[in-house]
Amino acid sequence: MSVLLVTGEAETSGAWMHTIAAALPEERVVQPGPGLDRAGVTVAIVAAPPAGSLQDLPNLAFIQSLRAGVDGLMADPTVPAHVPVARLVDPALTAMMVESVLLHVLSLHRQMPAYRAFQAAGAWQFLAQKPAAERQVGVLGLGVLGQAACTALAGLGFVVSGWSRSPRQVAGIRCLHGDGGLEAVLASSEILVNLLPLTPRTEGILDARAFSQLPRGAGLINMAHRWHLVEADLLAALETGQIDHAVLDVLVVEPAPADHPFWRHERITLTPHVAAATDPASAAAIAAQAVRDLRAGRPIRNLVHRAQAY
Amino acid sequence: MSVLLVTGEAETSGAWMHTIAAALPEERVVQPGPGLDRAGVTVAIVAAPPAGSLQDLPNLAFIQSLRAGVDGLMADPTVPAHVPVARLVDPALTAMMVESVLLHVLSLHRQMPAYRAFQAAGAWQFLAQKPAAERQVGVLGLGVLGQAACTALAGLGFVVSGWSRSPRQVAGIRCLHGDGGLEAVLASSEILVNLLPLTPRTEGILDARAFSQLPRGAGLINMAHRWHLVEADLLAALETGQIDHAVLDVLVVEPAPADHPFWRHERITLTPHVAAATDPASAAAIAAQAVRDLRAGRPIRNLVHRAQAY
Ligand SMILES: NC(=O)c1ccc[n+]([C@@H]2O[C@H](COP(=O)([O-])OP(=O)(O)OC[C@H]3O[C@@H](n4cnc5c(N)ncnc54)[C@H](OP(=O)(O)O)[C@@H]3O)[C@@H](O)[C@H]2O)c1
Ligand SMILES: NC(=O)c1ccc[n+]([C@@H]2O[C@H](COP(=O)([O-])OP(=O)(O)OC[C@H]3O[C@@H](n4cnc5c(N)ncnc54)[C@H](OP(=O)(O)O)[C@@H]3O)[C@@H](O)[C@H]2O)c1
Repeated sequence: MSVLLVTGEAETSGAWMHTIAAALPEERVVQPGPGLDRAGVTVAIVAAPPAGSLQDLPNLAFIQSLRAGVDGLMADPTVPAHVPVARLVDPALTAMMVESVLLHVLSLHRQMPAYRAFQAAGAWQFLAQKPAAERQVGVLGLGVLGQAACTALAGLGFVVSGWSRSPRQVAGIRCLHGDGGLEAVLASSEILVNLLPLTPRTEGILDARAFSQLPRGAGLINMAHRWHLVEADLLAALETGQIDHAVLDVLVVEPAPADHPFWRHERITLTPHVAAATDPASAAAIAAQAVRDLRAGRPIRNLVHRAQAY
Repeated sequence: MSVLLVTGEAETSGAWMHTIAAALPEERVVQPGPGLDRAGVTVAIVAAPPAGSLQDLPNLAFIQSLRAGVDGLMADPTVPAHVPVARLVDPALTAMMVESVLLHVLSLHRQMPAYRAFQAAGAWQFLAQKPAAERQVGVLGLGVLGQAACTALAGLGFVVSGWSRSPRQVAGIRCLHGDGGLEAVLASSEILVNLLPLTPRTEGILDARAFSQLPRGAGLINMAHRWHLVEADLLAALETGQIDHAVLDVLVVEPAPADHPFWRHERITLTPHVAAATDPASAAAIAAQAVRDLRAGRPIRNLVHRAQAY
């Protein structure tokens, strides 16, 4: 019986091996390679594994992801459909995402892109400023990250609407759901924050149609997945002024190629997929706990619903 | 009996007159001018009044400031020493200052100045990132604004130290006071936020000596008063790298002259004194309440301690 560790990024696989092995001293942790005893693998712990890497493991009983998003696993037809998959839910990652959302919402709310442009132009100029209590913020996704972000935003006094697939209740937040709820959330989002998982139903959701439903001059913050955003539609919406500024932590091609128009767009703020990084020690401890729950026959937390793909 | 309204900025005096008169319909609100009945003035409501404008008012019994800081009044020897002065304490202003502090602390904590420089250079580059729980933030001033800022920062998990003149206790904050406490607060301030009032003892407090006591590469956020900062010392500390980035909402000369070195300094973020603006309607309501408390013989809130000059 062994635990197979599969990571997509070669440069970090050694560090992951070290951390996971240290967190699970009672298990035999192995990595893919010629000598792998495939029948002995009962658990896989994965970080963005290459497609196909979880096939031909006849006794695989559980997959633990080291990432919050499991879209890659869900889209890989060779991942056996009957094997339960858990995603990473880590308070350290959630706290970091809350920081990112507050930082960028406050930055747009307090008009920092305009003040930075004024500074560059040598202009000492005030702008009218609304209080948070009059600023409408919309959050797409009311999961672990979306709920934490909504609660933190409401704590600062923002008027927050959130959107989910199924009905949700979050104290102090206007919660809407389903296709019918989306339009109302967009219409009341002077600042829109995306914290959805990538699924067939959310791919490309940040497109021209969605942008046209936002209040004119809205701010957009995409902290979730690169395939949520139709990049060409964003450029067009910035061009017309329908969107005033976008903060993007995820891009279709990462790293963005040198000629990508976003690099030097003065109304786009780019961060290189750092909104909420996985903390290896903390993630390894969570994965280890899941493996122990499995071995002891206890229920496993944060299982993915395969039918919904998240 | 009348209420004298004195504002320093000619362009806003008409708007203030309208707002204050509307908030105090039962009073005769007057402005300085040739026909002023000086003996009839029992209350002055002031926003940055020109020096000398409160002398020769023989029956003046109370001064209400429309600003949080009263350094101008305290430094004006013609303001009668026996007349009680109240400063503005307004939850709307406090909330706005908390937004500003969170915005700029998060921006420095999450290394946004570096990420903006990477974006401008077309570089997709990650930086190591500590969690808030390992980030030490120091706040100078534990008054209305400082305490609110500290509590909000601690709520995000930052390790917060605060400094005051007299001993203070704030839940979750390491509180130090007096000259002896300053060194310890500076030494543990990777990010230093200034929310002191300007007094003879705090003038020039952000100087080369203070900077040398910060951890190397610290961030500085001055949201309080222009005379707190020795601007030449900041330039020198940025030059050596002792300070990595400064966010300044207040400058010695406002608006800064076109040739001021801060405008285009890539490691300085300037905002034009907008960290926490007075909301006229809310400030007028607070001033009106103070006048009514005075007329009814009730105790008046937020009186300035003349001996401490704040
Ligand atoms: N940039 C970064 O550094 C970074 C870091 C971590 C995570 N992320 C991204 O953040 C995403 C969210 O993470 P999480 O932990 O909050 O996920 P989660 O707990 O699974 O929450 C997902 C939320 O999205 C909603 N949702 C899913 N499909 C929907 C649909 N078709 N229509 C409306 N709502 C829908 C869900 O609705 P229900 O409540 O009805 O289920 C739920 O509220 C991850 O999938 C990942 O892509 C990014
Ligand atoms: N940039 C903006 O937009 C803006 C807007 C509003 C206000 N401000 C500035 O913010 C300042 C603070 O406002 P506030 O309402 O928080 O004032 P406050 O309630 O009077 O608090 C002042 C704090 O500073 C401490 N302090 C004063 N002198 C000190 C000294 N010599 N050594 C150590 N600590 C000292 C006080 O100590 P104790 O607790 O012992 O009394 C108190 O904790 C204002 O004076 C104003 O200059 C700026």
